Amino acid sequence: MSINRKLPDEITTLLNAAGSRRAFLRSSAATAIAAGTLAACKAGGQQTQSAKPATDSDHSGGTTAVHPANAAAAATAAAEEMDRMHEAGIKAFPAKTEGTGNVLLAPRMDKDVKVYDLTAKKVQWEVEPGRRVEAWTYNGQVPGPQIRVREGDRVRINLKNELTESTAIHFHGLELPNDQDGVPFITQPPVKPGASYTYEFTVPNAGSHMYHSHHNAAKQVGLGMLGAFVVEPRRPRPIEKVDVDYVMILNDGMHGYTLNGKGFPATEPIVAKLGQKVRVRFMNEGMMIHPMHLHGMHMTVIDKDGWPQPAPWKCDTLNIAPGERWDVIVTCNNPGVWAFHCHILPHAESPHGMFGMVTALIVEK
Amino acid sequence: MSINRKLPDEITTLLNAAGSRRAFLRSSAATAIAAGTLAACKAGGQQTQSAKPATDSDHSGGTTAVHPANAAAAATAAAEEMDRMHEAGIKAFPAKTEGTGNVLLAPRMDKDVKVYDLTAKKVQWEVEPGRRVEAWTYNGQVPGPQIRVREGDRVRINLKNELTESTAIHFHGLELPNDQDGVPFITQPPVKPGASYTYEFTVPNAGSHMYHSHHNAAKQVGLGMLGAFVVEPRRPRPIEKVDVDYVMILNDGMHGYTLNGKGFPATEPIVAKLGQKVRVRFMNEGMMIHPMHLHGMHMTVIDKDGWPQPAPWKCDTLNIAPGERWDVIVTCNNPGVWAFHCHILPHAESPHGMFGMVTALIVEK
Amino acid sequence: MSINRKLPDEITTLLNAAGSRRAFLRSSAATAIAAGTLAACKAGGQQTQSAKPATDSDHSGGTTAVHPANAAAAATAAAEEMDRMHEAGIKAFPAKTEGTGNVLLAPRMDKDVKVYDLTAKKVQWEVEPGRRVEAWTYNGQVPGPQIRVREGDRVRINLKNELTESTAIHFHGLELPNDQDGVPFITQPPVKPGASYTYEFTVPNAGSHMYHSHHNAAKQVGLGMLGAFVVEPRRPRPIEKVDVDYVMILNDGMHGYTLNGKGFPATEPIVAKLGQKVRVRFMNEGMMIHPMHLHGMHMTVIDKDGWPQPAPWKCDTLNIAPGERWDVIVTCNNPGVWAFHCHILPHAESPHGMFGMVTALIVEK
Repeated sequence: MSINRKLPDEITTLLNAAGSRRAFLRSSAATAIAAGTLAACKAGGQQTQSAKPATDSDHSGGTTAVHPANAAAAATAAAEEMDRMHEAGIKAFPAKTEGTGNVLLAPRMDKDVKVYDLTAKKVQWEVEPGRRVEAWTYNGQVPGPQIRVREGDRVRINLKNELTESTAIHFHGLELPNDQDGVPFITQPPVKPGASYTYEFTVPNAGSHMYHSHHNAAKQVGLGMLGAFVVEPRRPRPIEKVDVDYVMILNDGMHGYTLNGKGFPATEPIVAKLGQKVRVRFMNEGMMIHPMHLHGMHMTVIDKDGWPQPAPWKCDTLNIAPGERWDVIVTCNNPGVWAFHCHILPHAESPHGMFGMVTALIVEK
Repeated sequence: MSINRKLPDEITTLLNAAGSRRAFLRSSAATAIAAGTLAACKAGGQQTQSAKPATDSDHSGGTTAVHPANAAAAATAAAEEMDRMHEAGIKAFPAKTEGTGNVLLAPRMDKDVKVYDLTAKKVQWEVEPGRRVEAWTYNGQVPGPQIRVREGDRVRINLKNELTESTAIHFHGLELPNDQDGVPFITQPPVKPGASYTYEFTVPNAGSHMYHSHHNAAKQVGLGMLGAFVVEPRRPRPIEKVDVDYVMILNDGMHGYTLNGKGFPATEPIVAKLGQKVRVRFMNEGMMIHPMHLHGMHMTVIDKDGWPQPAPWKCDTLNIAPGERWDVIVTCNNPGVWAFHCHILPHAESPHGMFGMVTALIVEK
Repeated sequence: MSINRKLPDEITTLLNAAGSRRAFLRSSAATAIAAGTLAACKAGGQQTQSAKPATDSDHSGGTTAVHPANAAAAATAAAEEMDRMHEAGIKAFPAKTEGTGNVLLAPRMDKDVKVYDLTAKKVQWEVEPGRRVEAWTYNGQVPGPQIRVREGDRVRINLKNELTESTAIHFHGLELPNDQDGVPFITQPPVKPGASYTYEFTVPNAGSHMYHSHHNAAKQVGLGMLGAFVVEPRRPRPIEKVDVDYVMILNDGMHGYTLNGKGFPATEPIVAKLGQKVRVRFMNEGMMIHPMHLHGMHMTVIDKDGWPQPAPWKCDTLNIAPGERWDVIVTCNNPGVWAFHCHILPHAESPHGMFGMVTALIVEK
C-alpha cells in the first residue's frame, strides 16, 4: 500500500513532459488506454461532417441584419475558440505549479511521543499556473501537511503562530480530552500572534479526521489553515487492504474551487493499475456541498467521519458536506483516464474549459 | 407495470377539461377524494369568522397616519389577491404547455442492436403557460427522450450536432469502455457543429442513469441537454415489482426550477390507484441540492445511483444532490391529492402561489 | 428522562450570573470541567511568547510607506480587538433574551381528545441580545410551542389566524387523511385573516415531525411559523431510552441563522451528566443545508424523518437538509463544554466571534 500515494517520479515526468500530453498518452503506461482515443481526436474518428452546420440564425426568426453566412462563420469561429481552450486545459493536466500541499509529515520522536511542528504563516500560493493568492497555511502548504498516526499513538503538536491574528487548532473528529479541543475561550486561550502552543494527547479513535483553525475560522480555514489527520486502526478490516490510499480535501473559499489546494489543471491525478484497489478519503473543508462524481467505475462507501457504515454501499456520485469525511473504495477494473469531479457543474467547467474541482483517476493496463 | 407512466388519455382529459379543476375534482376518479375538500373550500367548511381580523397596524405602535379602518381594508384586499393567485395556480394544475420531455424513445433495431438517434438542437421551450425560453435539447425535448434498455443490450446512439458549438454525450452512471465515456479531449474529440458521432456499447450495469452533455456542460446541461438512461435489470428484485415507474428529473438552470422540464402548474402529476406501488427515480441534473418532500405517505429508498442500498430505508424528505439518482418506492395506501415538492421553499412557492418544483401524487380510491 | 430538557433554574442562574462566565465555570457543576481551562486562558497556560511576532508587513514586499513598527502595532491592536470580541461572545453564552420558543405545550383534554390552541400572530422577537425582528409566530413563540403526543392519540388543533394574510398548517411527516394535510386549495380553504380553523386526527405514525405554514410558506415559515410535532411510539425501542430528549430546529430565514429561534450567544446549551444519553432531534425548517458538527463525541444516527434507519450508524457531522429530521443519540462519555455548530463556517463565526448556529453540549462530571 502506498500512503497518500504521490505519483512516482517517472509517471510525473511523463505527465508533465514538455507540456505535451501526447507524450504522456503515448507513453508505455498509457498507450493502450489512450492512443486510440487520441487518434480519434486527431483524425475525426467516428465523426462525420454533415452538409449544413447549424447557425445561431436558425432560430433568430429572420429579424437580424447579419448575413447568415457571416453569422455562421462567426459562430464557427467562436466554437473553435471554445474547443481550443478546452483542449489546452486538458493537455496541460496535470499542470506544474509551485508548492504542494497535503505532504505526509514525518514526526520527530521524543521517546514514545510523535512530535509534529506546525507553523501558521502566510505565503503566496499558486492555485493554478500563474494564479497566485495569499494563503494562510501550516508550514507553507495548502492543505497543511498530512498527519498520519495510529490509534493509541501519543502525539504532540507544537503550533507556532506567525500570523498577525490569533489562532488555535481543532482536531476535527478526534474524541480528545476537552482541553485539547482547540476552541478559544472555551477550551484554551487563543494563541496570540508570535506565540506558541502545544497540544498533546493519545490518539483515541481511528479514521479520516482533520485539523483546522477554530478561531476566525470562516476566514482562516477559507485561506488554507486545514489539513488531514488520518488515524490508522490498530486492527484494519479486510476491506481496508488497498493499494492506493488517497486523501482528497475539498475547499471553496477565497482560493476558488480546489482539490488539495489546487484547481484543475493543476490538480493531481490518482494513478492505479488495473485490478488495484484505491481508497479515497474525501474531506470537505469548504462552505458548500460538493457531490463528487467518478466516471467509469463505482465507489463503495465504507466509512463516514471515520466510523464504519453498518454495511458498505455503492454509488458513483457522493454528496460531501462541509465538515464531513467519507471513505470509499474503488476497485479499478476499467482501464482508462476517468474524469473525477464535483457534479455541481459550475464548480468544474466554464465556457473556457474545465477548472476547479476536477481531476482524474487513471487506471493503467 | 406502466413504463414511465404517462397519464391515460381519459385522465388527462379530465385534468385539463376547459381549465376547470372542478370538473376533474368531481369526476368519478376523484370524487371521493376531493369533493368534500372542494365543498369546504367554497362553503367555508370548518372555518369561522372571528369578530376582529388582525391588521398590519396591530403592531405599528400607533405612529402611522393611515386610518386603521383603511389599513385593515388594504390588508384584507392584499390577502384576498394573494389567495386568488394561489387558487388560480392550483386550479390550473396540470396546465397544458407546448412540448413534452422525457418521452420514451423506441429504438430502431439494426439486427441485435438498439439504435437511438439523438439530434442536439435549439428550440423554444414552454416551461409554464406563456413562458418560453431558449432550450438546447436532444430531439427538441427537455429532458431529452427517455432511453430505457435492459442490462446486456447492445445499444447504438447516433448523435447529430445541430448546435452552434461542439458537444458530446456522457452516459452518467454507466460503466462503459473509456472511449465511450463522452469527455472531449480525454476520451473522444468534441463533436463539432454540423457533425455527427456514434456511440456503441453493451449495457453493463442496471439502474437509473442519465445521459448529458459533457462539453461546456454548465451551460449545455443547464439549457436542457440531459435525459434519463434507465437500465432494467435482467433479474429484477421482488421490491422492484411496481405498478407505476416514474422518472423525475430535477433541474434549476436557466429555465428556472423544473421537474421534467416544466414548472408548476405545468408539471405532471403522478397518478396511481389505492394500493398500487409507485417507483420514483429521482435524478438531479441541476446545480443545487433539492430535498424532495412527499405529503401523506413515506418513500422507501431502495437504490442510490442505480446500486441497491444494503437495506431499504424510509423517509418523507429525500435530499438529492446534483448528479445523484435515488430510487424510491411509495406504497399508495392513503387516498387523495398529495403535494410533492422541493422543501427549499423558495424553489416551490412565492407570494404569488406555488411554482417551480411542485407536483402531486394523486392516489385514486 | 427530561422531555425537551430545559436547564434547571439553578444551572441557568449559574450560567447567567452577572455576566460572569467565571462564576459558572467555577461553580460546583462545572469546576472540574472548566476551571483548568479558564486558568489557562488567564495565565497563558502552555502558551509562550516568542521574540518576534509576525506582522502584516512580513509579506508586503516592502512597498508600503508605513513604518514596520507602526504596522506591527496596528496589527497587534486589531488582533487584540478581535480576540476581545470573540471572548465577549463566549462569556455572554448563554445570553438572556426575551422570549423562549419550542416550549412544551400542555394540551387541554376534551374527553379523550388532546386539544391544542395555536394563534398565528406577529410579535417582536429577540434573536440575540438587542436584536429584535418581526416574527410571525404560533402563540408568540419561535419556534412555535412544542407539541408532543403519543402514537394513536386523538388530537385537535384550533388555529386562530390573527395575521393580515391567510395561512394553514401542514403537519409535516404525519400520514394524515388528505383533508387534514393543510395545503390551501388542494386539501382545504385558506384560513383567512381573522378566521379560525380546526384540525382533528388520530396520530398515525411515531417520530420527529413538524408543523408549519403551507401558505406563502417561504415567507411565513421564514418568519417563524413552524414548530416541532413529536410523536412518541407506543412501544419505544431500547435505543430510545435516553436521559435527555432535545429538539433542535434549524432556521436560516429573515431572522438569520438560528437554533430554536435564537442565534449564539442566546442559544440554549444542552446539559447532561457524564454517562447519560442525549437524544437530539434535528429538524431543518430553513432554506439551506446545515451540516451539524459535535465536538468531542460522536452521534449515533437512529431515525430519519421519524423512521428507524435499518441499522444505527455513527458520525460527528450530520448533513441536514430543509424538511429533513434526523434523530441521533450521544452517549456523553467525555466531560467538558463541547462546541456544537453548523460546519458551514460563515453560519457560525465571523471576525467578530461566534454567532448564529452555535451552541454547546455540556457534559458535567
